[in-house]
Amino acid sequence: MTRNHTPKTLAVLLRARMQSDPIPTPPPPRTGPDPDPAATPAATVRHWLHASASAASPSAAALDSFSDGYRSLDRVGRREILCSLATEYDVPRARVRDLMRQYMGVASAAAASGADGAEAEEEVKEGAASALYRMERGLRDALRPRYAGFLEAMNAQPGGLKLLAVLRADLLALLGEENAPALRALDSYLKEKLVTWLSPAALTLHHITWDDPASLLEKIVAYEAVHPIRNLIDLKRRLGVGRRCFGYFHPAIPGEPLIFIEVALLKDMAASIQEVLWDDPPTPESEATCALFYSISSTQPGLSGINLGKFLLKRVIDMLRRDMPSVQTFATLSPIPGFMQWLLAKLASQIKLSETESEERNSLGGACSTFRESILLPDEERMIHDAIEQADGNQGIELLQDILKSRQWVKSEKLLAALKSPLMRLCARYLAREKKRGKALDAVANFHLQNGAMIERINWMADQSEKGIQQSGGIMVNYLYRLENIEEYALSYSGTGLIHSSSSLSQYLEASKYCTYVYIMNEKKKGETFLR
Amino acid sequence: MTRNHTPKTLAVLLRARMQSDPIPTPPPPRTGPDPDPAATPAATVRHWLHASASAASPSAAALDSFSDGYRSLDRVGRREILCSLATEYDVPRARVRDLMRQYMGVASAAAASGADGAEAEEEVKEGAASALYRMERGLRDALRPRYAGFLEAMNAQPGGLKLLAVLRADLLALLGEENAPALRALDSYLKEKLVTWLSPAALTLHHITWDDPASLLEKIVAYEAVHPIRNLIDLKRRLGVGRRCFGYFHPAIPGEPLIFIEVALLKDMAASIQEVLWDDPPTPESEATCALFYSISSTQPGLSGINLGKFLLKRVIDMLRRDMPSVQTFATLSPIPGFMQWLLAKLASQIKLSETESEERNSLGGACSTFRESILLPDEERMIHDAIEQADGNQGIELLQDILKSRQWVKSEKLLAALKSPLMRLCARYLAREKKRGKALDAVANFHLQNGAMIERINWMADQSEKGIQQSGGIMVNYLYRLENIEEYALSYSGTGLIHSSSSLSQYLEASKYCTYVYIMNEKKKGETFLR
Repeated sequence: MTRNHTPKTLAVLLRARMQSDPIPTPPPPRTGPDPDPAATPAATVRHWLHASASAASPSAAALDSFSDGYRSLDRVGRREILCSLATEYDVPRARVRDLMRQYMGVASAAAASGADGAEAEEEVKEGAASALYRMERGLRDALRPRYAGFLEAMNAQPGGLKLLAVLRADLLALLGEENAPALRALDSYLKEKLVTWLSPAALTLHHITWDDPASLLEKIVAYEAVHPIRNLIDLKRRLGVGRRCFGYFHPAIPGEPLIFIEVALLKDMAASIQEVLWDDPPTPESEATCALFYSISSTQPGLSGINLGKFLLKRVIDMLRRDMPSVQTFATLSPIPGFMQWLLAKLASQIKLSETESEERNSLGGACSTFRESILLPDEERMIHDAIEQADGNQGIELLQDILKSRQWVKSEKLLAALKSPLMRLCARYLAREKKRGKALDAVANFHLQNGAMIERINWMADQSEKGIQQSGGIMVNYLYRLENIEEYALSYSGTGLIHSSSSLSQYLEASKYCTYVYIMNEKKKGETFLR
Repeated sequence: MTRNHTPKTLAVLLRARMQSDPIPTPPPPRTGPDPDPAATPAATVRHWLHASASAASPSAAALDSFSDGYRSLDRVGRREILCSLATEYDVPRARVRDLMRQYMGVASAAAASGADGAEAEEEVKEGAASALYRMERGLRDALRPRYAGFLEAMNAQPGGLKLLAVLRADLLALLGEENAPALRALDSYLKEKLVTWLSPAALTLHHITWDDPASLLEKIVAYEAVHPIRNLIDLKRRLGVGRRCFGYFHPAIPGEPLIFIEVALLKDMAASIQEVLWDDPPTPESEATCALFYSISSTQPGLSGINLGKFLLKRVIDMLRRDMPSVQTFATLSPIPGFMQWLLAKLASQIKLSETESEERNSLGGACSTFRESILLPDEERMIHDAIEQADGNQGIELLQDILKSRQWVKSEKLLAALKSPLMRLCARYLAREKKRGKALDAVANFHLQNGAMIERINWMADQSEKGIQQSGGIMVNYLYRLENIEEYALSYSGTGLIHSSSSLSQYLEASKYCTYVYIMNEKKKGETFLR
């Protein structure tokens, strides 16, 4: 490339502004300014969708008509609207390709001119930079799906944010049934926008008390998802002495927290939810040294996957530290919602595997070997056999499956004693070792670990409610937020999936090590296991 | 392309995930976790900038250190930081080009397969769509400058939004001095983000009263930009009977409105600011039929260009309609900040033109013709001559320039009478005809017109304060918000620049028509004009 050539090429390219080729217009509304009165409800809503989504700045009236209409639709009607939005107001691909071609030209020319170094004139370089920035901006703009403007206008409308949350909840339900790429893209874009709109800077922390309006307290009762509020006395207790309830509010959704957290101020980190919900009389607040987060509930299914809890926890901890210097321990008492489901699935697959194995052994005349996981330690298996006073041929895992399924085991002292050791050990393993895409399998564990907590302690018979027994065998866990480690732990967990846990957890995990994988050899020595 | 070829090509392309080539890492912080204690203040702030902007999720401590450090820097130091942010954390161009090449490949293959129509298998088409969406998302992400993450983390930090507003104010000041493309791109990106974060959904409308904290009222006094508040009595009056003051607040900037508006509830649309500020006793609120917006002030220079006022006005109108059904007229009494400046510039250029002309006439022996704008009508010129009792050779425009510059004219009844007609006519023309890039030249006019107002009336000697005389010759204007036309007017103004005005304005504009362009012929008939 000659010295004179570069600036000239550039100059031509720079003068060529971003080609303002017409954006392909969406299909025009099939009717005039008002929808056909004979149209179906869904067609009417589509009319308002087209009126809003194809306008440069949609009118408030059209957006309101859309909102009202959408809310009145049934599942089928809403599906039609969501599909229409996702496909008819998609990314303008032809325009994107045109802009890309222009960009590639200018970018290569600019890169070539940059290589010329001092020879290229300062002015030309500046012009090239301007052109690149302008084109990048244009490209960012063109790569936005055409429904972006509609979503933004809706968010700016009174009641619009709530409507968008409803819309996303429907979208998530729909994606559970069908996996259309356009719908998935709409969900991903809408989620991205919601994250921006619900930035912690836009949220207000409010200390919810018994003095708040009944319309707000009613929401707390309705949305409490972890430990249901049974009656007014229960609610009053959770807002009274030694208790705190904080909600995160958004100006566009007044009178209703997006998420709220319940805190108990205690002398020690509680080991059971019973102590928290029914302590009477309460610990005087001046004696409290531990803030225990015992419930956190979000209220909008449409905001699923948007981590508001992280910032809520952070702000509540900051506020408590400031207001109550004697409180030094910040911990949770949390459910383990996925434990039983995981364990039962594990038992079922192992039982199936051992059945297949024995069939194969029979058909192959007794010669078979396989890698198999042993769920129970030999001692644990023996204790279970002893407890049910049944020493027949059934394997320990089959017995365990039957016991857990019946849910009657919590009523038997003997069974409780026999199960404590294996269930606590397996629970520790489930929390600290079982992963999905590099993150803790348990959703609540993943939530607290990504916020920078560590697993401090697991507690036997800590939640004896029906739900507690069913979900986690009655076990609950304390996650601990150590102020000096929060950032470091959050970082290492998000980076490498490293889960920090206390020495009490390590003991359980140490025991598990001896039975993670066991090689069953077929040498007529049934029951003998080689531990590794 | 053969029938079998398309799906195959696609299949290969689809399996090729978005290439996750490493994002070029920014220069590492030059020091360890803490900055060199001997470093200059700006170098220390750069250290924290690098620590925050190069991390995937910057630590709160680093962001806070950056904020504190930045605030303590002088102009030169801040410039260094802004340039560093704009250039070192720019768009990753190499990555953008790579992704574009991949995208173009898949997009053309998908388009070709689409053309094959029914022959392409449904599954392949779905796969292609998924790949396109994934790549578009990746591209949107890559086209974000690398400082995007830093800005977002800062916004999520307590006090961060305010810091970003300070940063943008500095940036705007800097852009006034030097026009670096990277800085301009940073400003444009930051503005875009601020628009999203300051979406009206995130703002709370608060009725500011005498019961509000002094710390808030102090801000109102400090930021009132249109009609300065002289003392506590003046402030109390503006918050008392027949008056309203509404502020827009953001949760992240508590105790300080981003923008506020002052309203007077009156029997008629006021024609002077004196009536509004000094009416005693006030109109009883039950008799009010007009809500007059007489002042609107924003408090954050860093939010310049972000139209918060539009939504504020809309919400205030909605609220007043609901609370006071007897109020039917929504209008402003507004300054015309650019009128005198425009008129004096116009006069100066015309005087210069006529001087050049007469020189040319002399040198060319009296033969010359030119198109020239006549600012004054013959009648108006005569009245001015009469008023100053000076019938010498000076042209009317020269006299007018001298009179306006002296600012003594408001004290002379005669001059006031002589100037009323030309100034009102020229003011109407300035407001309704003078444009810049298709929009009203006057900033306040542009603001109300884009919000959907019309120009209702101009008022002589409506603001006799020194500022009023100096900026607009004492003239003020009523913009009228006709509820039934707001959306339509806003749309036609933003689309075609159409300015709606009342019949009283039209009369002035009609008169102006006869002197917009006048052809001065050199036929020894000095003073004769051919009107078109």
